[in-house]
Amino acid sequence: MAGPIITLLTDFGWSDNYVGVMKGVILSLCPEARLVDLTHGIPPQDVAAGAFLLERSVGWFPPRTVHLAVVDPGVGTKRRGLVALAGGQLFVAPDNGLLTHILAAHPQAEVFAIENSSLLPVKRSRTFHGRDVFAPIAAQLAVGLPPVSVGARAHEPVRLTLPACRREGRALLGCIVYVDHFGNLVSNVSGDALDALGPPDRLRVSVAGRVVTRVMPHYEAVGVGESLAVVGGFDRLEISTRNGNAAESLGLSVGADVRVEVGISE
Amino acid sequence: MAGPIITLLTDFGWSDNYVGVMKGVILSLCPEARLVDLTHGIPPQDVAAGAFLLERSVGWFPPRTVHLAVVDPGVGTKRRGLVALAGGQLFVAPDNGLLTHILAAHPQAEVFAIENSSLLPVKRSRTFHGRDVFAPIAAQLAVGLPPVSVGARAHEPVRLTLPACRREGRALLGCIVYVDHFGNLVSNVSGDALDALGPPDRLRVSVAGRVVTRVMPHYEAVGVGESLAVVGGFDRLEISTRNGNAAESLGLSVGADVRVEVGISE
Amino acid sequence: MAGPIITLLTDFGWSDNYVGVMKGVILSLCPEARLVDLTHGIPPQDVAAGAFLLERSVGWFPPRTVHLAVVDPGVGTKRRGLVALAGGQLFVAPDNGLLTHILAAHPQAEVFAIENSSLLPVKRSRTFHGRDVFAPIAAQLAVGLPPVSVGARAHEPVRLTLPACRREGRALLGCIVYVDHFGNLVSNVSGDALDALGPPDRLRVSVAGRVVTRVMPHYEAVGVGESLAVVGGFDRLEISTRNGNAAESLGLSVGADVRVEVGISE
Repeated sequence: MAGPIITLLTDFGWSDNYVGVMKGVILSLCPEARLVDLTHGIPPQDVAAGAFLLERSVGWFPPRTVHLAVVDPGVGTKRRGLVALAGGQLFVAPDNGLLTHILAAHPQAEVFAIENSSLLPVKRSRTFHGRDVFAPIAAQLAVGLPPVSVGARAHEPVRLTLPACRREGRALLGCIVYVDHFGNLVSNVSGDALDALGPPDRLRVSVAGRVVTRVMPHYEAVGVGESLAVVGGFDRLEISTRNGNAAESLGLSVGADVRVEVGISE
Repeated sequence: MAGPIITLLTDFGWSDNYVGVMKGVILSLCPEARLVDLTHGIPPQDVAAGAFLLERSVGWFPPRTVHLAVVDPGVGTKRRGLVALAGGQLFVAPDNGLLTHILAAHPQAEVFAIENSSLLPVKRSRTFHGRDVFAPIAAQLAVGLPPVSVGARAHEPVRLTLPACRREGRALLGCIVYVDHFGNLVSNVSGDALDALGPPDRLRVSVAGRVVTRVMPHYEAVGVGESLAVVGGFDRLEISTRNGNAAESLGLSVGADVRVEVGISE
Repeated sequence: MAGPIITLLTDFGWSDNYVGVMKGVILSLCPEARLVDLTHGIPPQDVAAGAFLLERSVGWFPPRTVHLAVVDPGVGTKRRGLVALAGGQLFVAPDNGLLTHILAAHPQAEVFAIENSSLLPVKRSRTFHGRDVFAPIAAQLAVGLPPVSVGARAHEPVRLTLPACRREGRALLGCIVYVDHFGNLVSNVSGDALDALGPPDRLRVSVAGRVVTRVMPHYEAVGVGESLAVVGGFDRLEISTRNGNAAESLGLSVGADVRVEVGISE
């Protein structure tokens, strides 16, 4: 019988020992844990990027997976720590908006504040709750601790105000919300919204008011170095450059407006 | 009894959640899998670098290891997916040359095309077959699926035309095929070819027609900041700079000519 | 029953297959091993940084954990390989000072030289003892090999001369010994030394003779972009910039002097 899965998502990078010692803490409390790194490359303190990647990851993991997410500029203050039970999985994170997308996707989620200090080490640093608070809680949840044991229901967990994608007549108005390792510009326009708008080969995509491209089924539908729009692995419309880096070649990043309209008639 | 080993080699980098979700898919299908990252740092779309590192890695893993390799600029097109049984191990990769060195090293390899869609999720993205095709196949092979179940024999898998190292009289003519994290310039001149040429202390190495150095047993045989040639961990001749970065200090990279000759008589 | 834990700390980076093949070697010899990366981001050949991170990590792991540490500019020379039993854990590393802090923290440590070639593969490279010497030894120790089997007691293992933190009257004089991923400047002034000096809110910290700041309980005690001193996750005084990179904004790095004095009276 395979042990519980615990994923880790942080902005800790890989050059220090921060992630390694969190894993040491987890394995000390839950020796059977199977640890999976979602990423540790969230830009420092970028809660919005962490919130996006976290929600776009969890559907690929089995029920009861414990997701440990730490992007935590407010560490050491009175900001709460949270445990959420959402969609049959468990989440452990600071209360700073990191669970925004998870809670939006799961309105029935149960959220608890981490208050029960008997579950935590006596000596805790002021700057590394990933190791001293969140990892011990995640490990104990993985072993079977009921979420309700960590503390009382957390009312009104912090939620980021996120840019929405909206429909205006025959157009979708969204924006770039993430740039990936390849330089793909990932928007908040979902595959479903796009399908509802019209047939892909009739859609025209403009970004930041100037780049105009079309929705293509795959990268090789355009020439090397040319741009295209494609519904990517996030199930979101992305602007890409074939065999290139769209963010660099187009000079665009998070926040750029995206407009999709039915405008190709031929 | 330890579970099956699945290695992962990609150009996905570490900053996104791409590798993490592939692992979620694998663990959903093969909970006992032991996952080992070979690297995710293949330069984007650099199939040749991926092919080199893959072949130079697999000998260190036990029989029946499943190697999942994804460097896949043609994702979403009609390029095939492959499963290969070679040297007692299994390989899952796009049919774009990523298995070139593996197939060259194992002429008896059996190669199958991934055709059996009943093994795949119904909803598959057009841009992320690492998650939606190759990971599910790798996981099922690890569980015990016979390779023949994925589809028919794949005839003429794509092979890269790779620069060869050739012997000309008392010289070996090769080139740099890889640059590592330390800036070591790794050539395609094998340790065996070098041994056959002559005693190491009589060999002279030139690179790009201008750098001249000798074959040394280890880095500290030269002064700090000096260059040397050494048979490295890849069992290939490498040009290195002691406690430095040879690629930077020599201004050389992949493709530079390497010439080794018996030319030191004293 | 969960398998033995083996941690890995190297300067190999992530872009090559070096760490991956070490794991292949380990899993071939110890299939039950649970592998944890401490980091592979030690700056190339920076034995002091590796020694610091190693010692600051091991306390978070359970007894009998095997720590495999390879920062090894002298590979291939006559420098010894070591196995140490210290604090109930095992260490495998080159004899170049990488165990300096571990041996200082554990004066009773037993240290052995790796001499028994029957424990090693017959064919060993001259440049990659991480794979060919240290990984096989670590795996066999994890399986249960007694440390004494690797070779004779190693007398006078190499120790780095490390900058000490010293007390002078009402001041502590130390220096920056590490810079982390966030740009935090980590000193060698311990939390205990600081406590012994005086109440945190009366302490004044100067770095490189010019930066003056105070010891704060957490990052949000100062404004965004302002500097502060905080006892961080290493249990050492760190100089940080809130939501910023202190090393960059202050232009400071390893070696900068740190002075803490009781000097705030209000």
